[in-house]
Amino acid sequence: MAQKPSIPKGTRDFGPSEMAVRNYIFNTVRGVFSRYGYAPIETPAMENLSTLLGKYGDEGDKLLFKILNSGYAFKDVDESDLAEERAAAASVKVCEKGLRYDLTVPFARYVVQHRSELTFPFKRYQIQPVWRADRPQKGRYREFYQCDVDVIGSKSMLNELELVQIVDEVFAQMGIRVVVKINNRKILSGLAEVTGQQDKLTDITVAIDKIDKIGLEAVKAELLEREVTHESISILEPVLTLSGTFAEKLQVMRGILASSQVGMKGLDEVEELFGLIAASDIATEVELDLSLARGLNYYTGAIFEVKALDFAIGSICGGGRYDDLTGIFGLADTSGVGISFGADRIYDVIVGLGLLPENASGSTEYLFVNMGGDIAYIMPAIKALRAAGHSCEIYPDNAKLRKQFEYADKKGIRYIVMAGEEEMTANELSVKDMVSGEQKKVRMEDIAK
Amino acid sequence: MAQKPSIPKGTRDFGPSEMAVRNYIFNTVRGVFSRYGYAPIETPAMENLSTLLGKYGDEGDKLLFKILNSGYAFKDVDESDLAEERAAAASVKVCEKGLRYDLTVPFARYVVQHRSELTFPFKRYQIQPVWRADRPQKGRYREFYQCDVDVIGSKSMLNELELVQIVDEVFAQMGIRVVVKINNRKILSGLAEVTGQQDKLTDITVAIDKIDKIGLEAVKAELLEREVTHESISILEPVLTLSGTFAEKLQVMRGILASSQVGMKGLDEVEELFGLIAASDIATEVELDLSLARGLNYYTGAIFEVKALDFAIGSICGGGRYDDLTGIFGLADTSGVGISFGADRIYDVIVGLGLLPENASGSTEYLFVNMGGDIAYIMPAIKALRAAGHSCEIYPDNAKLRKQFEYADKKGIRYIVMAGEEEMTANELSVKDMVSGEQKKVRMEDIAK
Repeated sequence: MAQKPSIPKGTRDFGPSEMAVRNYIFNTVRGVFSRYGYAPIETPAMENLSTLLGKYGDEGDKLLFKILNSGYAFKDVDESDLAEERAAAASVKVCEKGLRYDLTVPFARYVVQHRSELTFPFKRYQIQPVWRADRPQKGRYREFYQCDVDVIGSKSMLNELELVQIVDEVFAQMGIRVVVKINNRKILSGLAEVTGQQDKLTDITVAIDKIDKIGLEAVKAELLEREVTHESISILEPVLTLSGTFAEKLQVMRGILASSQVGMKGLDEVEELFGLIAASDIATEVELDLSLARGLNYYTGAIFEVKALDFAIGSICGGGRYDDLTGIFGLADTSGVGISFGADRIYDVIVGLGLLPENASGSTEYLFVNMGGDIAYIMPAIKALRAAGHSCEIYPDNAKLRKQFEYADKKGIRYIVMAGEEEMTANELSVKDMVSGEQKKVRMEDIAK
Repeated sequence: MAQKPSIPKGTRDFGPSEMAVRNYIFNTVRGVFSRYGYAPIETPAMENLSTLLGKYGDEGDKLLFKILNSGYAFKDVDESDLAEERAAAASVKVCEKGLRYDLTVPFARYVVQHRSELTFPFKRYQIQPVWRADRPQKGRYREFYQCDVDVIGSKSMLNELELVQIVDEVFAQMGIRVVVKINNRKILSGLAEVTGQQDKLTDITVAIDKIDKIGLEAVKAELLEREVTHESISILEPVLTLSGTFAEKLQVMRGILASSQVGMKGLDEVEELFGLIAASDIATEVELDLSLARGLNYYTGAIFEVKALDFAIGSICGGGRYDDLTGIFGLADTSGVGISFGADRIYDVIVGLGLLPENASGSTEYLFVNMGGDIAYIMPAIKALRAAGHSCEIYPDNAKLRKQFEYADKKGIRYIVMAGEEEMTANELSVKDMVSGEQKKVRMEDIAK
């Protein structure tokens, strides 16, 4: 009758050593978020499907995990619903709820639902898993955590500055060298406007992104192939070859976007933000990157992306400003800005570069060997160590010493404490440091020092 | 097009003030668990239905939330499956996965699946939400957190002692006075054996539980009504009226259970555990309570339940020893013992008794007023405060002072910091304590002191 146990594809178990890294990441971001005055919220894993559907595009709708209604789920289903082409429509007849797909839509729903209780500007962070029925592959999971930090209800550029400060502080604490890339959606809108090719915006940003890899001529050829006109390309050429300091780039762009009101507004915004960053003591490299578009269409102002400098992996953090996130739920004119830290990729960077601090390993520090009759003798020592914040175990069984030492070794426990008859007579404990190999006797009352 | 936002019934949003209490609870138990050498694990929200079905009884199977298969979920469904009496069978045709119902079965699955990587005895804790399609009502939710701590792979009674120590320490830290009630499944088996009425075990434990409320005669009448024989009742009477010290109770029970090997073993076990507890410095009241049975059938030894003394609510923590939890997944003879802290009820006790420590409120400590041009001046002060571990905000907009003070007041921010021209000239900051009303000037370099 025994089943061979397994878990759904695309999901993961996290054991103690993985949890140590994950908790280190979550504790670090949580600490920084809260020192900047952001407060935690949590929303339910299940949302009404009406909250989720239509928010992530057609592809996103397909990737929602839906929850079968309890009881007689099929009561509204008839035979015609069983055909393959009716699959999406039929699924909504048997499911009212779905698992959250990201933290942004539930946050927008939360803000609107609770707006009378909230104090605006509302600064919140949220660290919870999300679920997507994506095809599982390396680095892509069906359950993964997002760590979002947002402020909603303020248009001040100080909020953007603060998010860059948070990025700077989080990755400095973790010892990960990064570059923060910044763009502005209004600049991209301006480019679409001056070229008159609104529908080619994605092709244009992809081209800007490729210039360093394939060169100007190849990029131009590709743009032509994608039906970007010769005229547009000649307008875009100075954008594609943009270089120099931030001020120089800005000057070139002001020339190109002079006729676009929205484009010039975007340039004013990045100028203000880069000015604030320059006046602050942010140590992280920050650069204007006009190829930054990011997938989500709801950004209306600043766009952020963070890349690790010493480890090849996609962006490890990103976000931007959105002026109408809550509109879909009936609260208009509420501008917000936020970023999301990618816990899984940060995990890979920390493990790949060996950046986990030794004291974050989560291992027990002291193992008290079980010698049978000595429990009452060692209890006060264990209590003193725990009161001083140390983690301690007694081996629960009076097993062979060798087995107990093996246990300590496998669990990475550094200190082994023994109390044989000799120690008990002398009111002492023997403490062996498994790293240095050193063993010494400590008086009972001194153990926690 | 705007939707009126809501969440599924039985689920909850947790805002900043609720999160403060919840995080205080989770941080407290996590701190104690880890000082006792327990390591965290996490398992996926979704498990294969084959892992979950049949583990919680027929009623539990009905309460599982099932996840609709992605894509063409109805491919194996035919018209006959749409009838109401086929609902359970049809649901399994369209769903392969379900949301976890508790942390115990996923833990058993985890231990078996990863047994070659684990070091036994394996001490783990797990703090994650679980989902049950129960009818929502006051205090009963469809999504709630469990905090489980278990050790598996050791039969030593030191493990039971350790769990009582953990209970003692957790509730002492929270300032909640509790009583730990202890029973042993083997004693209950012994009672069933000596009465010969195995099937009446539940009626017997319910009767023992009611004796204080309704008295001996009413309990006897009820037992008769439930077809417990006169003979059984006369054997049980000394159990029902059991009183005195632990030693006295034990002596009476040894008389009653003398003919039951398993019953006597149970008495030996509670004697050993109470002996260990007496030799330790556990301050919490601990009592033998023979009415303790708890719903789950997998307990085979000790049974625990913790009740708050100063707040009327069900048990806030409970658990026990199970000798064959992993057997269903193919790993026999692996005894474990564990307890689970009920976060929602502990939340109610903490809020009800006003036990949340002031420093756990999660509020921002310092609000720097935004006076327009002073951002660069106040930045170093904010940085120094944050570096010293304090939470600080700048009000992002140059709004009216009154509005900024209102914001601080609503968010419960204690200190308001201002830097007008006078302060800037003198290299100072004005700090107002919103609790005492006191306002004073502080030199820039002294702000973090």
